[in-house]
Amino acid sequence: LARQPNFLDRALNQVRNWRGGDPSPVGPVTVKPELSESDLPTIRQQIDACLADQGGAVSARLRAAELGRAYLSLNARGRLRFFRLLAEEYDVDVEEIDRASSALAAAEGEQDRRTARERLKHSLTAPRVYLLTQFNSLERGVKFLVDMRAELLGLLSEHPELRPVDADLKDLLRGWFDVGFLDMAQITFNSPASLLEKLIDYEAVHEIRSWSDLKNRLDSDRRCFSFVHPNMPDEPLIFVEVALVNGMADNVQSLLDEDAPPIDPDAADTAIFYSISNCQSGLAGVGFGDFLIKRVVDRLSQRLPNLKTFATLSPMPGFRRWLDGRIEEGEEGLLTESEARLLSAMMRADDGHAALKALLSDPDWPREADLSDAARPALMRLGARYLSSERDGRGRPFDPVARFHLNNGARIERINWLGDRSASGMHQSAGLMVNYLYKLDQIERNHEMFRGEGAIVASAAVRRMARGS
Amino acid sequence: LARQPNFLDRALNQVRNWRGGDPSPVGPVTVKPELSESDLPTIRQQIDACLADQGGAVSARLRAAELGRAYLSLNARGRLRFFRLLAEEYDVDVEEIDRASSALAAAEGEQDRRTARERLKHSLTAPRVYLLTQFNSLERGVKFLVDMRAELLGLLSEHPELRPVDADLKDLLRGWFDVGFLDMAQITFNSPASLLEKLIDYEAVHEIRSWSDLKNRLDSDRRCFSFVHPNMPDEPLIFVEVALVNGMADNVQSLLDEDAPPIDPDAADTAIFYSISNCQSGLAGVGFGDFLIKRVVDRLSQRLPNLKTFATLSPMPGFRRWLDGRIEEGEEGLLTESEARLLSAMMRADDGHAALKALLSDPDWPREADLSDAARPALMRLGARYLSSERDGRGRPFDPVARFHLNNGARIERINWLGDRSASGMHQSAGLMVNYLYKLDQIERNHEMFRGEGAIVASAAVRRMARGS
Amino acid sequence: LARQPNFLDRALNQVRNWRGGDPSPVGPVTVKPELSESDLPTIRQQIDACLADQGGAVSARLRAAELGRAYLSLNARGRLRFFRLLAEEYDVDVEEIDRASSALAAAEGEQDRRTARERLKHSLTAPRVYLLTQFNSLERGVKFLVDMRAELLGLLSEHPELRPVDADLKDLLRGWFDVGFLDMAQITFNSPASLLEKLIDYEAVHEIRSWSDLKNRLDSDRRCFSFVHPNMPDEPLIFVEVALVNGMADNVQSLLDEDAPPIDPDAADTAIFYSISNCQSGLAGVGFGDFLIKRVVDRLSQRLPNLKTFATLSPMPGFRRWLDGRIEEGEEGLLTESEARLLSAMMRADDGHAALKALLSDPDWPREADLSDAARPALMRLGARYLSSERDGRGRPFDPVARFHLNNGARIERINWLGDRSASGMHQSAGLMVNYLYKLDQIERNHEMFRGEGAIVASAAVRRMARGS
Amino acid sequence: LARQPNFLDRALNQVRNWRGGDPSPVGPVTVKPELSESDLPTIRQQIDACLADQGGAVSARLRAAELGRAYLSLNARGRLRFFRLLAEEYDVDVEEIDRASSALAAAEGEQDRRTARERLKHSLTAPRVYLLTQFNSLERGVKFLVDMRAELLGLLSEHPELRPVDADLKDLLRGWFDVGFLDMAQITFNSPASLLEKLIDYEAVHEIRSWSDLKNRLDSDRRCFSFVHPNMPDEPLIFVEVALVNGMADNVQSLLDEDAPPIDPDAADTAIFYSISNCQSGLAGVGFGDFLIKRVVDRLSQRLPNLKTFATLSPMPGFRRWLDGRIEEGEEGLLTESEARLLSAMMRADDGHAALKALLSDPDWPREADLSDAARPALMRLGARYLSSERDGRGRPFDPVARFHLNNGARIERINWLGDRSASGMHQSAGLMVNYLYKLDQIERNHEMFRGEGAIVASAAVRRMARGS
Repeated sequence: LARQPNFLDRALNQVRNWRGGDPSPVGPVTVKPELSESDLPTIRQQIDACLADQGGAVSARLRAAELGRAYLSLNARGRLRFFRLLAEEYDVDVEEIDRASSALAAAEGEQDRRTARERLKHSLTAPRVYLLTQFNSLERGVKFLVDMRAELLGLLSEHPELRPVDADLKDLLRGWFDVGFLDMAQITFNSPASLLEKLIDYEAVHEIRSWSDLKNRLDSDRRCFSFVHPNMPDEPLIFVEVALVNGMADNVQSLLDEDAPPIDPDAADTAIFYSISNCQSGLAGVGFGDFLIKRVVDRLSQRLPNLKTFATLSPMPGFRRWLDGRIEEGEEGLLTESEARLLSAMMRADDGHAALKALLSDPDWPREADLSDAARPALMRLGARYLSSERDGRGRPFDPVARFHLNNGARIERINWLGDRSASGMHQSAGLMVNYLYKLDQIERNHEMFRGEGAIVASAAVRRMARGS
Repeated sequence: LARQPNFLDRALNQVRNWRGGDPSPVGPVTVKPELSESDLPTIRQQIDACLADQGGAVSARLRAAELGRAYLSLNARGRLRFFRLLAEEYDVDVEEIDRASSALAAAEGEQDRRTARERLKHSLTAPRVYLLTQFNSLERGVKFLVDMRAELLGLLSEHPELRPVDADLKDLLRGWFDVGFLDMAQITFNSPASLLEKLIDYEAVHEIRSWSDLKNRLDSDRRCFSFVHPNMPDEPLIFVEVALVNGMADNVQSLLDEDAPPIDPDAADTAIFYSISNCQSGLAGVGFGDFLIKRVVDRLSQRLPNLKTFATLSPMPGFRRWLDGRIEEGEEGLLTESEARLLSAMMRADDGHAALKALLSDPDWPREADLSDAARPALMRLGARYLSSERDGRGRPFDPVARFHLNNGARIERINWLGDRSASGMHQSAGLMVNYLYKLDQIERNHEMFRGEGAIVASAAVRRMARGS
Repeated sequence: LARQPNFLDRALNQVRNWRGGDPSPVGPVTVKPELSESDLPTIRQQIDACLADQGGAVSARLRAAELGRAYLSLNARGRLRFFRLLAEEYDVDVEEIDRASSALAAAEGEQDRRTARERLKHSLTAPRVYLLTQFNSLERGVKFLVDMRAELLGLLSEHPELRPVDADLKDLLRGWFDVGFLDMAQITFNSPASLLEKLIDYEAVHEIRSWSDLKNRLDSDRRCFSFVHPNMPDEPLIFVEVALVNGMADNVQSLLDEDAPPIDPDAADTAIFYSISNCQSGLAGVGFGDFLIKRVVDRLSQRLPNLKTFATLSPMPGFRRWLDGRIEEGEEGLLTESEARLLSAMMRADDGHAALKALLSDPDWPREADLSDAARPALMRLGARYLSSERDGRGRPFDPVARFHLNNGARIERINWLGDRSASGMHQSAGLMVNYLYKLDQIERNHEMFRGEGAIVASAAVRRMARGS
Repeated sequence: LARQPNFLDRALNQVRNWRGGDPSPVGPVTVKPELSESDLPTIRQQIDACLADQGGAVSARLRAAELGRAYLSLNARGRLRFFRLLAEEYDVDVEEIDRASSALAAAEGEQDRRTARERLKHSLTAPRVYLLTQFNSLERGVKFLVDMRAELLGLLSEHPELRPVDADLKDLLRGWFDVGFLDMAQITFNSPASLLEKLIDYEAVHEIRSWSDLKNRLDSDRRCFSFVHPNMPDEPLIFVEVALVNGMADNVQSLLDEDAPPIDPDAADTAIFYSISNCQSGLAGVGFGDFLIKRVVDRLSQRLPNLKTFATLSPMPGFRRWLDGRIEEGEEGLLTESEARLLSAMMRADDGHAALKALLSDPDWPREADLSDAARPALMRLGARYLSSERDGRGRPFDPVARFHLNNGARIERINWLGDRSASGMHQSAGLMVNYLYKLDQIERNHEMFRGEGAIVASAAVRRMARGS
């Protein structure tokens, strides 16, 4: 669900050290943007002084701040060199690990063993972790590290040698962004415009096309909640958009229709989660999405006691990819005989596979009612099959959104025909959408079944549909 | 400097789980106050379910919250049992450490070794750490853990087997209370009364006797700053009281005189730090005091450019204890001949040691001018000697307050005769007080000299006085 | 109910003009503290320039600000002179009133008449009103005028010639402090200490003896609300203290007992208003007390649906004065025969009047149970009679607190024997207290009956008691 | 400068009475949208009960609130009837005025005369004023009355009989919106989006075309300030947009260019006020614009000491209307001979008047450099003449914007050729713009000269240009 934010575009002048902008006694660290070979000794010396707490803990923080500024002044090439330095020169000391291991083996008595274990554990933490931690003393230090990891993540595929640095950074951020430290904030049209602008940037599921589109999503029958970290309060971490409706929504274009009149929120019986977007790509893998949904369910139930149903209206982003694969390999039995016959006739194709391929290649097919009617039984059945039984190479549900909600304890409730007729909706999932249902008293059991036996919980209707009955 | 707060006096009903008070789906954990043997299986089962993320991460948090409530319902005996459970049953698995060590030794290739190191590191972390972390999801979870550690600290001397639990808790809190996460807040008489009441409770150096005493300490020529953690914003962690004066203050009773008229803060040339108190005994050893002083120096220099000198007016809490020891063991040369002669005559004592002992045994001696004049040269010299050269068994400066400021990079600037005539001032340090001077451009050097060679930096005047010249 | 606040003790340096402390282009107005004869031309010139909007409206405001500063620099004598200047030289222009009257009489046609009426109305407003209005541009201008009126009120009895100035000031403040502009604020122990200190200063009914007494009055089963004006947000205008109890409270010492454990506010069935204090003596006669009670009733009913009864526990401050008068003039039938007989015997007095007089002269009589039992029937009957039928020279209920609550639509519900045994309670009302009951559906009718026929509404029990039956 | 806001579009459900939405004891006032004849008695009865304080002051407020709701439920026709009712039946009582006048004439003694004057003054205030005042107890009562006046203003030209109601309402609002009660607020892109949306709606000078246009106007080298009333804090009353630049800006399109990089605000030497817009049409005639400019000048000088020049970049909205009139009536000497010759040749016209008329009729003329060069001397001279010497029928400067700034004490500093090439700029002022200069030490004198002798202060350069020299 994540999306790359435009990180670090806040320029250098926005980062000031913790002393409020004053020149620090430790002096600035000036390096070339590409961090040339001749700059490395300076950087090393600063890092070493930092790690040695030279001049005391306060001076060490100031040094870290200066290093942070230096990092920000680097270009892409310079940052890569910086990360490499961390990877190569500030990794764990393998020999010390060996020594500590031997010391533990040799230790006698509980107290000695405990001390030896502490030493061993300490040797297993790379020194760079200590440096990275100190960056939090920068003016916006937590955000700095989140953005640093976002940058690092973009380098990993080409530079796998940086993975250990990423692992350390992720560990650090996972501790800091533990859900217990996060605040849930409601976002309305009275929120700061600068914050709302970020929603427009970060929305990853159904693009926010304009401020009036955004305003409509924050209308009286809508709710929007986000998680926020106290040390970066103007940055949403993740946000969810909710529509208060009557009956389970089956079409996202209707939900987003700016001309539709708002309904009375106190009278609504259903809350539809129609979009969840992560905002900080630097927090990839630091999960709090499931907490957000459940806290929103709690909050809404308290405030709007009329709400009986909590469900999503979700895309099926992997459906077409899966289906195209099936067609490509000519899976036998992909279509029933009658489906194949009907579709071949409509599309004037040689067989069902060819007909289906031809149909899907033209995103305008839903406009022709005949065609649409003919395609519906097959695509709905295949959609239900895709969600409820298809798995990837690691045995997990094929669909990434399904994985997220099933792991949260939701169940697949209903497939919606032409629920998303947008270009991306047609392209990714042939217009299908799905409702995942969050039923409070079944969440634990569903989760355990999913996690234990890998069971995919779906409503009877979806299961029937998948069987073609 | 720390003092035991009246922790956990906020009763059970103030702690609600993160869902806002609703009954949680996981059900309450009900145990007897003393946590009888028959309750242990329930507790174990909850902890195990928690550690296994049973029902998903959200359910695990709810379980942790229920366990937290159960803990709060325990009496002293019950809590001891609870801590013992954590110490005995949720410690590291020694066999897994062995296996992981062997696996690391056997690993080949960088990736395998890295994985093996991760496993080893993980095995070195006690499972209870995971549980303790989850308590932060309680309504006031961070404070909960701080108070839990305060309680635990009180048990350590009698129950050393709990030390490993404390070590884990301290590690956890050290990460959460890293100075980069703390806000510095100014406290004034416009601050909430409930917060000011805490200052009265926590002040550990010069007792706040009444609300009018407190108001005087927050007058227009005073400043008070504290560190605050975003997850417990109404709880000061540490606070410092500052007086804006002209010239370096030499007497704390004058500073605290409620009848003294305030001076114009913009005209003051000196800021005197006359009291620093830690507020959370559960954060003992998690240091941020040095940061506070330097951030206050920064803040004040920006706001009040007239300030030229930043110094403390500090007690010498170990002086009498040290001096009494010297007298007791009859240290030769403790007094100079002339000092001994004069004092013996005044006190009608056999020798200098007896005279000094007799003098100090009556806290009212400063009232008699003759006596006071006679004692002054000896006591000032001994005070200077005590601070500038006496060390404890571990080679550190004998005086704990001196250790703190010297390690921060301050220097011993001046000894003040009868600077604190209060009962505790007379009792602890024969009325002497000391100014530690924070000179920005010498802090780093002083710190390094202290940390490196153990050098104690003192002004020429103090050094001369110690030498008796 | 009002009490003189310690007004204007915030010194001159706290009042800065609206430009944020900068010297204003119009230049300072410097006068002697006693405003000598030779200063008057300067003052006159400034006022005239102000009234003429010389230099434009902005300059006029700056001049008003300078005049305000000059006023603050005056001593008591100087302020008297200043008020006299306003009274004598900036009153209405009687000749212009005559001319405007004649013009109105001569006007023909609706438009001309309307213009003439405007002119006449304008001539009836004293020019000083325009000046007073402009003082609101001072940094704390609204508070400035409130305090100015407090000062002026203190002068009226000796200087009745200043009454017209007071009338103008009161009109102005009545408009500004219209209840529609006021906010109702809840006060808790989390409110700023500087605000709570004002409660201690202003409490006029049952003195707040200490911060712990105050804290007890803000405990979980207490509520405190005040009205606040947006332009002087840190100054309560009036506040009411409420106790949440079970059953109608009959004793104020019990309510104020710091050792009594708090009860569960959600379980309480009764809200007792036990103290209402005005805070700004400069707002005397600008009534909003009745609004406060009813808004508090509304707020509490919404938040605590269990509350069924809203009543006061009030003093009867005029009872003893009235009763002493009756005894003094030897009113026949003041006591019934049996009451007189019993009391005479107990007090060894010649007759009932003498016995009653003797009894009341010793405030310790309640300690003797026999005496107390003997006095009870007579005093309770007389208290009931006093409240329910005694009137002052203008035909109003004799008791000022009764007038306030009866006019608000409350009814006299119950007299409480020894409800206030404090020195002032014994002195003013022989220990009696009274509950006024606010019953929402009877308030309008009670008010109309009181205002129309002057009817005093009392419960059947009180009426019976007054009749002695 | 004012513009009609989209008032009262916040529907009925947003207005709740002061009791927090509960049904009030006085019962709802239900009338038909058009306020039919049969509804009038109900309305009259409520108003009368209100004016009589029936049931006490609190009930009167509730009645006013119910009347306010009823008003909001009316359509345009109903509101007209409601205003007529106020105009006809709740006007001053002419006979009472006569009686009070006679009583004053007959009064003897100072006290009696004072009482008689009070009575007369009271009789000159229409009873409806009392009702209107009480509307402030509505949830958003101050805004309610502002919007009510906006509605009323729209009716005055067709219904002059309502003017007295407007006069009363304006008096009331003038008192409430006295500048001493207003807060100055800075608006940034961190302000609530709902507030920023209002800027887009209200901007009356240079239309805000989009959110990115708005964001550019709130960039780091821009400032925006507004006045706000404490009882309607989310509604700007007036706002000014300021650009921080180097040298006096001469072109508004450059200022609004979204692609221009921001400059360093601390380095800017000039603040340009390029747009002032009133937001509440219901406050027409309640002036505070001059206060805003001067407070902004103060604020900016304090924060940005580098600023040396404060000036506007203003339109000349009446220039073309005036010039077209001159051409139409064929004013002799409108153009100099050489100007006429040159223009006639360029435009192939018979004479200068015809040439000028032809030129101005095509808004695209600036595109042709020859034409533009030929027109420049004549148009600049005429613009300078227009501003510095042309007056309207009442002797005031012809240009309304000039009137505003000259009255504030600014002077005409410079005419800018093609300073506004937008459609409206060409249409209203042939592309000319003007800088008015605010020089702190000349403001008072300029204002007095303008108000006294009607003198228009202009720079030597403008005066020379007007003379054609």
